[in-house]
Amino acid sequence: MESKAIVARGPFSQRKWTIEQVKLREPRDEEAIVEVVASGICHTDLHCGDTGADEGVPAVYYPRVLGHEGAGYVVKVGKAVTKVKPGDAVFMSFAACGACHVCRSGPPSHCINAFNLNFMGEPVFASSSGSASNPDIGGRFFGQSSFARHTIASASSLVNASALHLTRSDLALLAPLGCGLQTGSGTVLNVAQAGPDDAIAIVGLGGVGLAAVMAASRIAKCKTIIGIDRVAGRLELARELGATHVFDTTDSAFGELVKRVKEVTEDGAGVSVAIDTSAHPGLVAAQIAYTRYMGKIIQVGTGMPESFLEVHMQSFMVSGKQYFGAIQGWSRKEEYIPQLVRWWREGKFPVERLVKMFAFEEFEDALGSMGQGIVVKPVMVWEDE
Amino acid sequence: MESKAIVARGPFSQRKWTIEQVKLREPRDEEAIVEVVASGICHTDLHCGDTGADEGVPAVYYPRVLGHEGAGYVVKVGKAVTKVKPGDAVFMSFAACGACHVCRSGPPSHCINAFNLNFMGEPVFASSSGSASNPDIGGRFFGQSSFARHTIASASSLVNASALHLTRSDLALLAPLGCGLQTGSGTVLNVAQAGPDDAIAIVGLGGVGLAAVMAASRIAKCKTIIGIDRVAGRLELARELGATHVFDTTDSAFGELVKRVKEVTEDGAGVSVAIDTSAHPGLVAAQIAYTRYMGKIIQVGTGMPESFLEVHMQSFMVSGKQYFGAIQGWSRKEEYIPQLVRWWREGKFPVERLVKMFAFEEFEDALGSMGQGIVVKPVMVWEDE
Repeated sequence: MESKAIVARGPFSQRKWTIEQVKLREPRDEEAIVEVVASGICHTDLHCGDTGADEGVPAVYYPRVLGHEGAGYVVKVGKAVTKVKPGDAVFMSFAACGACHVCRSGPPSHCINAFNLNFMGEPVFASSSGSASNPDIGGRFFGQSSFARHTIASASSLVNASALHLTRSDLALLAPLGCGLQTGSGTVLNVAQAGPDDAIAIVGLGGVGLAAVMAASRIAKCKTIIGIDRVAGRLELARELGATHVFDTTDSAFGELVKRVKEVTEDGAGVSVAIDTSAHPGLVAAQIAYTRYMGKIIQVGTGMPESFLEVHMQSFMVSGKQYFGAIQGWSRKEEYIPQLVRWWREGKFPVERLVKMFAFEEFEDALGSMGQGIVVKPVMVWEDE
Repeated sequence: MESKAIVARGPFSQRKWTIEQVKLREPRDEEAIVEVVASGICHTDLHCGDTGADEGVPAVYYPRVLGHEGAGYVVKVGKAVTKVKPGDAVFMSFAACGACHVCRSGPPSHCINAFNLNFMGEPVFASSSGSASNPDIGGRFFGQSSFARHTIASASSLVNASALHLTRSDLALLAPLGCGLQTGSGTVLNVAQAGPDDAIAIVGLGGVGLAAVMAASRIAKCKTIIGIDRVAGRLELARELGATHVFDTTDSAFGELVKRVKEVTEDGAGVSVAIDTSAHPGLVAAQIAYTRYMGKIIQVGTGMPESFLEVHMQSFMVSGKQYFGAIQGWSRKEEYIPQLVRWWREGKFPVERLVKMFAFEEFEDALGSMGQGIVVKPVMVWEDE
């Protein structure tokens, strides 16, 4: 099958990404070919696609097709695929092995094979001069590589959306549900299980952080919602989406931030839930400090390979505070993404407030605007053929 | 009221502890006078009573009466005390304020006022030449200061045991339930909520660690129970109490320990629950390493004021492992201690395997034997008068 894709042949900032004609190999038993309607862009695409292959960063290689927040229609399925059929609308999310101890009992986003399945993927595409049966361009990034007109997705990453009766433009708007928006909202609702008694602070107001603000405000109805960032426009948007307080950290030391957050919580005890999307060690330490006894500090940002957090053992132990990471908001995507769509329809999860649409051909603008913090969640759309 | 107590007038190892005649002030509204039958000894007594007052360690001062695992009979109660009456058998445990956000909803052992209530206490005793109305010797250590023939306990620290119909010698044997044994067993049962599918590793096989082994084996029925220590006799006892594997760390590097623990777990994935009583940063890091994805690392040992744990943020975040401290096994003592007594009666919690009895007059032997690791849980008993 012939189609086209954004092929990254080197770092984005070196302008090594271009839309190329590609061939797709045949889908395997557990795969489907999906016609992509739209794809959100997330910082992880830049993490994996704007680093030199010679820098020794895991999961960075070229050539490959990135993209991991896609929505579209199934074109063809492998013979073992039962969850979707040709013509079904789908969201693409993350892949999990389905067999490890985490997949059997815990949230599948912490699958012990997640790194290989999501970050490494495998060759799926061939260049137009090559042979489809011998693909040499990496695909299946997060099981999907959605920066393509057509792609091969592992069935594991698919969510059947046909029962939701979404239009093509709904699918485009909601394309980012499969990663960033699910992560932010799921961290509030599934991981923290926040409710009206909670005071929650969210560091970093990108797509993940603002989705957390929306979920905390309109779904969990937390009594205190604190948004923290360095970009004035994002702080303003957080307020509009329901943050009760916003703090600009541009010029403030971490100690000052701790004081300001505690001041606006009951008895000055601190927040019950801290959500971090920065993975900056000093800022995470500040979040531990402003979290109250028995509170949760949830690491959502992944962090650089060389980052270490220093925890003062005695005070941390006595406090009963819990520190842990959470991927994809512990989403069980087959149930959770349809739930997000229902909340969107009810006005509780206004995705349109975060999204700016681009044509796929404008991918340099789309990626650039996100990198500079101008656009929260760029979504790229293919023209309907 | 006149009685006697072990008064610490300086560090134990400088032989500054002696049994003295003391006077007790009148109990206040929320206090009771308790005739102590017996008291367990715990390392926390030495932590607070074998350090120089000039070393700047918080919660170290003299003169004071230590002891925080007592059992006895109520003699007199303040007018606001309703949970016990004179003649009732009681266990003494820890104190909590009952009013803070943790006491209102979480495990009261993480009370935000716990440090002052448990570690600082307040003057209760006067020396025989002094005036009972002007006490100058610290009491109410953990709300109780049980190293006394009679003591003043805060009602908060008391558990009414009268419905359990225990004999005086039962009370003596079970005296340590209120701290170390509740902590070890409660960490397995209440904090980790371990069950038959769990693989659990316990570092440090003192009274806390061995109580955890007993609970994991005979109550939670965990499939894998790994005991880790440097004292051969304790490893042997752990095996007898149900440990499926024991590792002696005397001559092994932490990396070697990680390898050995993972080897005996399913698929080599590691344990689902790690319980640490050492608070040694390098050893805790090893425990994080041998815990499987989504597993819990529970810090029970308190650690030195200058100890910091270094957490590798990226791998920790991806793993979903949870690191947190837990005090007193999150016991709600009024229900949990009677439950421990029932398990003891059913043979599921054989306290007698851990305890060695001493007379209070032999306190130097009792404390010394624990300090040297010869006796797991020394209990001191007053002669029945």
